[in-house]
Formats: sequence, structure tokens, C-alpha cells
Amino acid sequence: MTTVGIDAVEIRTGNLKLDLPETFAPEKGEDPEKYTKGLGLHASSFPDVYEDIVTMGANAAKRLMDRKGLEPDDIGRIDVATESAFDHSKPASTYIAGCLEDVYEGDFHHANKGERKFACVAGTQAVDDAVNWIQAGKNRGRAALVIATDTALYERGDSGEATQGAGAVAMLIDEDPSLTSVDPVQGFGSADETDFLKPNQQFPSVDGKRSMQVYLARMREALQDVESQRDLHPDDFAVVPFHIPFPGMVRKGAALGFRHISRGTDVEEELAEEIGMQPRREDFEDDEAFRDALTEYTDDLTGTDRYREWYDRTVEPTLGISRHVGNWYTGSVHLARASALKEAREGGRDLDDAEMMVCSYGSGAQAEIHIETVQPGWEEEIAQLNVDEQLRARKDITFAEYEQIHEVHNYDETTDIDAFTTPEEEFVFDGWGRMGERKYTYVE
Amino acid sequence: MTTVGIDAVEIRTGNLKLDLPETFAPEKGEDPEKYTKGLGLHASSFPDVYEDIVTMGANAAKRLMDRKGLEPDDIGRIDVATESAFDHSKPASTYIAGCLEDVYEGDFHHANKGERKFACVAGTQAVDDAVNWIQAGKNRGRAALVIATDTALYERGDSGEATQGAGAVAMLIDEDPSLTSVDPVQGFGSADETDFLKPNQQFPSVDGKRSMQVYLARMREALQDVESQRDLHPDDFAVVPFHIPFPGMVRKGAALGFRHISRGTDVEEELAEEIGMQPRREDFEDDEAFRDALTEYTDDLTGTDRYREWYDRTVEPTLGISRHVGNWYTGSVHLARASALKEAREGGRDLDDAEMMVCSYGSGAQAEIHIETVQPGWEEEIAQLNVDEQLRARKDITFAEYEQIHEVHNYDETTDIDAFTTPEEEFVFDGWGRMGERKYTYVE
Repeated sequence: MTTVGIDAVEIRTGNLKLDLPETFAPEKGEDPEKYTKGLGLHASSFPDVYEDIVTMGANAAKRLMDRKGLEPDDIGRIDVATESAFDHSKPASTYIAGCLEDVYEGDFHHANKGERKFACVAGTQAVDDAVNWIQAGKNRGRAALVIATDTALYERGDSGEATQGAGAVAMLIDEDPSLTSVDPVQGFGSADETDFLKPNQQFPSVDGKRSMQVYLARMREALQDVESQRDLHPDDFAVVPFHIPFPGMVRKGAALGFRHISRGTDVEEELAEEIGMQPRREDFEDDEAFRDALTEYTDDLTGTDRYREWYDRTVEPTLGISRHVGNWYTGSVHLARASALKEAREGGRDLDDAEMMVCSYGSGAQAEIHIETVQPGWEEEIAQLNVDEQLRARKDITFAEYEQIHEVHNYDETTDIDAFTTPEEEFVFDGWGRMGERKYTYVE
Repeated sequence: MTTVGIDAVEIRTGNLKLDLPETFAPEKGEDPEKYTKGLGLHASSFPDVYEDIVTMGANAAKRLMDRKGLEPDDIGRIDVATESAFDHSKPASTYIAGCLEDVYEGDFHHANKGERKFACVAGTQAVDDAVNWIQAGKNRGRAALVIATDTALYERGDSGEATQGAGAVAMLIDEDPSLTSVDPVQGFGSADETDFLKPNQQFPSVDGKRSMQVYLARMREALQDVESQRDLHPDDFAVVPFHIPFPGMVRKGAALGFRHISRGTDVEEELAEEIGMQPRREDFEDDEAFRDALTEYTDDLTGTDRYREWYDRTVEPTLGISRHVGNWYTGSVHLARASALKEAREGGRDLDDAEMMVCSYGSGAQAEIHIETVQPGWEEEIAQLNVDEQLRARKDITFAEYEQIHEVHNYDETTDIDAFTTPEEEFVFDGWGRMGERKYTYVE
């Protein structure tokens, strides 16, 4: 079967920045380390007044198309993944295609457009569908554009408020990809959960503690599903990107993953002298005692050099961008992949043909773990990212400005304020049309 | 490549019925024929108090699984298509899987669940994705469940009010299907349109006239896209199911389709003596004169025996169920397919290996036209439908009751009334959970 995967990636942040230790923590009367160490976050990105999921997605897609020299005719499919949709019927992909048609000669009239929703996991589902579309021979030589775009806002004062963020990741899915191939092995862990949901409301209802448990439980199930198809060993993978609700959550996910896939391997034996063998259910009288033993083993494990070396090599580099932008929901795991590849390139690390285990997650709840193989050509492709420039160019807003911009993006408020920044060479939101639709224009 | 397509189908209507000529027309002071002849509709289905997109979808899926002898382990993918979602993050497929897990031994924890949104076309997109998933070799021997479920309500007094409806169509997508294979030829006609949308609102904003034009324009584009891949001739197809916003719209779509695919064929020549050859753009001074000539030709065309015979054979039988249930949005084109197969079986028509041209549409806007081939075995499968019983069993509501039930399903109202019917052997909505989630139970 043809090699299919991610040929190119673009990242687009919201143009505003809320500094967590400097601006948010003092206002909340909290120790800045609660955010920087506890959550692992330094800043959140926010959309300015003229930005939303469409502008961020269209701006990411335009830069991708421009630098790959693509015309609309080269694209046969545009799928948007989002949990921040502002229309219950018309998909964001039609708005994004409309934006792009304003600046390119051709059109996307024969491209299949769609929208996927499943909390933060839909971006990966859209990638999977695009890969399948090509492998099933339906693409007629064309590539797919997958755009994961979200404005991740919480109710003001919610415990998730510090994990907010906004941005888009655009990916080009094609044959003979330059970045990574998406391999056929996939594992799913999925259950009907109410850890985080938005019943007819813009901002989520969250059970924070439950949400963390569900994240881990679904990841474990997805790992088991992968293991039913191939053996796993911690050293198989050069990079392990996770969905990043906040970097602190990934620390827990990574420890569970390492423990799980090292069980029964030489790694478990190697570590046994230091921390013992992993607890086995049959050695315990009840589930609770077993779980306590697992927790203790995991704590010990994360203190070992072997684990730390693994974590620093495979997981830590995935967190770099997220620490400065917050949670981007559907885009988050794709930021993690890009972040690791970017750091690898900057550090001169050779990842040609290396395997990645990509651990996606969406509340409600589903984990998907799949394997990708880094393609020769990845360095050239990843060198094109201008995310560092974008992050530096964000306007650092005051707490009062944060309060205003949160209200601007709250659907229940009609707040009309001037933008904090001046748009340049980008798509912007330009007011409402006669049927209540959002309208866009390109600013030179 | 393996033959993949629709192995089984189930239809589930809402349990209430609003009679348009007997109940709706008198209240509106309108001639009943406005509905029965103009729109082509006799009744609309509505959900009772304890029904919604989840119960209708789960009830359709359960009957499908029961009669095919399926266990949860046999299903690797559950995709819901809807534009009536009540949660902005958690997909309806997780709720439906939760319902089914209450009545089966196993679980769907390793199935990939999702939700697609693009007005009425998302059901077909979900079928396509499931077909691709199998053809790409990702299904590990399992089938996919695709559920198109909607409660199609308009604002009270809106001109679309008479076209409302509610119900679900569940389809099993599998290798070596019993009903139809979904063939590789697909055509898309897609543009950024504001014909019908729901900007942060439950009920649609509709520009009725524009919406009809856009439906036809996108269908024409999709036909052109198909023609770039294979020749089309009206007699190629035994059945031509369209998306049915109301049957009257399909009359226009069918005329456009026939005219388009008969151009340049023996059919055009055969009709020339009676109505002349089709107008060609090059023979007209401007677009307007050309369009007027096209309209005139199309009017003449629909009066010919040749066209009427084609329409009565390929299109009319697709409208049978819709006339008595209204628009089911994502499920509508799938009702059309089922309706035609059902009538063909009842009429003793041989459709083995016959081709269908399936014409799906979603506002916003996108048409997809693809080809399906009826599989030997279709008669046995379609004979299992109990839709006639379901339609007869609906409670015929008064106008006052209609007003109440519309309010019950309006998210902005909190209306608490007793159900009009008594649920039996079905999933029902059972109140709200602590996080505002809808809860369900199975009533024996």
C-alpha cells in the first residue's frame, strides 16, 4: 500500500498572549509556580477581536499552501476538526474555503468539505479519515487539508481558566509525505463518559479529577488495543506526543504509558533491582490494594534515571510550544508532534525513519494511539515553521484586557471593543451578514 | 479491491405524527393541496417527550444489531451524522454506544466513535469514511455503524415549518454487503454559501429561494465532477435517490439531472422532434437568455412521456416514506434509497446488480453524487424493515399538542409535559445528570 501521511504542517496562534506567572497569578493571588511548575504552563494564546477558528484555520492553511506551491485544484478534501463551532449546521471548512478562494485564482468546488467533533480527539480522527481516503484510492491525485482549530475558553473563574488557549494546526495529508507516514496500527480506548462536556453551552462543564482518571483509563485501553496488534517496547519510539490539556497531565500519561509497555520486557527486569517488579493483580487480595501498589510503583518509576532519560528524550520535547500557548483542544497533540520535531532539528537529532507513538485524547471520552514513522525530508519541512516569530509577535495583554477579550469571544455577550493589534497579511473577521453569518476578508 | 457498502439498514421514526392536510393546513388557513401537491408532503414525524436524536439512533441501531445477530465486538466504528447535536464537545455516538452497552453483554471500548456535521450531507460523508476505513484495511474484520439522526425543527411560523420531521437511519457498512456496494466514483459540488445556516441557534435561518438555487447549482457541479470520471446516461440507473428537503424539491433536481446527463446522448436526439435539442450557451447572446431557454426546455422535458417514464421508475419510488415523515436532514437521502428498494421489492422489480445514482446534499453547501450497485440479497435485507408498522403506530397529534411538543424540544424553553405515548421496548430519555448531560434508560 502507498505510504500516506503528513506532508506539511503549519501552526497559527491567536495574536494575544496572557502571561500566567506575571499577569494571571498575581491577580488570582496565587504562587506563579502553581502554573509554571504545577500545570507546566507559562502563557496562553487568545484570539484578538478580529480572530476566530475560521481566521486562524484559514491563515494556517494559506501559509501552508503558499509555501508548498499549492493551488485549490491540488486539494480534494478539507476537513475541520473543532469543538468551538459557531454554527450548528454549516461546517467551518466552508468558511475557510471561502476565505482561501478570495486570495487564490481557482476554487475548491470539487473538494469534499466536512467537520468532525469529538472534543480534542477529532483532529486525529480527521487525519485518519484523510489517510483512509487516499489509501482507498478516492483522492484522484489530490491531497487533503486537515485543520484542527479551537478557541479553548472556560467560564471565568473555572479551575480550567489557566489552561485556556487558541490556535490552529493545518496539515497536508498526501502520498509520499515529507514529515511522517501514518502507519496502519491504531488502538482505541473509548467509553461513554461525562468528564468534560458542553451541553448546549459554549464553555465546558468539567469534573477535573474524573477527567484525569478517564484520560488515563482510556489511554490504557488504547494501549491494550495496540498491543493486540503488535508488541510495544519503550525504546521503540523516538518521540511520544500526547494530547496536552496541560503539560502536567502528560507527565501522568507518560508514566502510565512507560509502565504499561515496559511490563514483561527487559526494561522491567533492569529496573527491578532498584524498584522491584511491577505489581501483578493476582498477587493482591483486592483491586484497591493492587491500585495502591501500582501508584507506588509508578511514583518510584518516575524517580529512576532510566525513566527520566526516556521521558526527557521522547516526551519533554513535545511540550515546548504548548507551555507558551495553552490548550488548543483538537490541535494540541499535533502541536506536540511539531514541537518535538522542531526541537529535534534544532538539536541536530537524527529522526529519519524513527517511530512515534501518537497518543490522542478527547473527553467524553476516547483515546487513540497510532504509530507514525518520521520521513526523510522532515528537517526541511519542519524548518519552515515560523511559530517562534508568531509567539514573539503576540501582544502581551493586561488582566483587564484579558477580561475584555474573554467577553468578546463569549457568545452570550455583545461586546464591541477595538482590536489590541493591527492585522497584517491575514484573514480577519469582518462583521455579520444578513443571515447572521460571520463574514471575513483578507487584509493586505 | 474488496466490495464494500451497505450491508443493512434500519429506520426509526419519531413516535408522533402531525397530519399536514388534516391538522396543519386548517390551522394555517391554507389549502391542504399546498402541502400534499406543492411540497409533496402528507405528514411530519416528531419525537415524543422521551425521544431525541440519541434514542432514535440507538433504537435504530439496536434493531439492526439484533436482527443481524451482532455483538458490540463486531463493530469497530460508530459514526453519527447530525445537525441537531445538543453538546458542543461530546459526540452523540458516545451516548448511543452507552445506551447499547446497557443492553448487550460486551462493550464498544475499542470502537472509534465520532460525529460529522455538514447540514444534510454528513450522513453520506460518514458512509464514505466508513467505506474508506474498510478499503484502507483498518477495520480488523469489523463493520462500521453509521447513524444519521436529526430532529428537523424550524422556528414556529417559519416557511419551512411544514417540512419538519424527525427520525434516524442506521446503516451497517461492511465487506460483501447485502444491500448495495458503494462504488469508487464520487463527484462533489461544493461552495461557501449562506442558503441555510444555524449561527449559534437551534432553528435555521433560511433563504428559501436561494436555497433551491444552490441545491441545483451544487448538484450540477457534482454531476460535472462525476462526468470527469465516467460517462452518464439516464438509462444507466435503476434508482436515483436524492436528498429530500421536501418531495417537490426533488422534482426540480431530477429534471436538472435528467437534462444534464441526457445531453449529447441518443435520448436528447430521441426527444428533439418533440421539444427540440437542448439549448447550448454558444447559441445565446447572454447568460440570461440561455438560462431562460434552459428553463423552457426543462419545462417541456418534464411534460414528455420519456421523462415521465424515467421519473416514475427511478425517482418517484424514492419519495414514498418521506411523504409521510418530512425532512430527516442527514437521514433523508438514506430514507430515499430504502424507500425505493422497499417499493421495488413489493412490486416484484428485479434490481440485482442494478446501479443507483445517489444524490446527497447539504446546505452551506455541498452536493455529493456517487454510484451504488444493488447487491443480490437486497430483497431479503429490505424485507426486514418494519417502517410501515412504525408509521401506523405513531400517535396522530392535534395542533395544540404539536405546539406543546415543539416547545418541549426547543432548547430555550423548559417545558415539562407528560408524554403522549407510552414507550415500549425502546431507549428513552430519562432526565439530566449532575453535569447537565442527558441520561437514558431502556424500557422493557
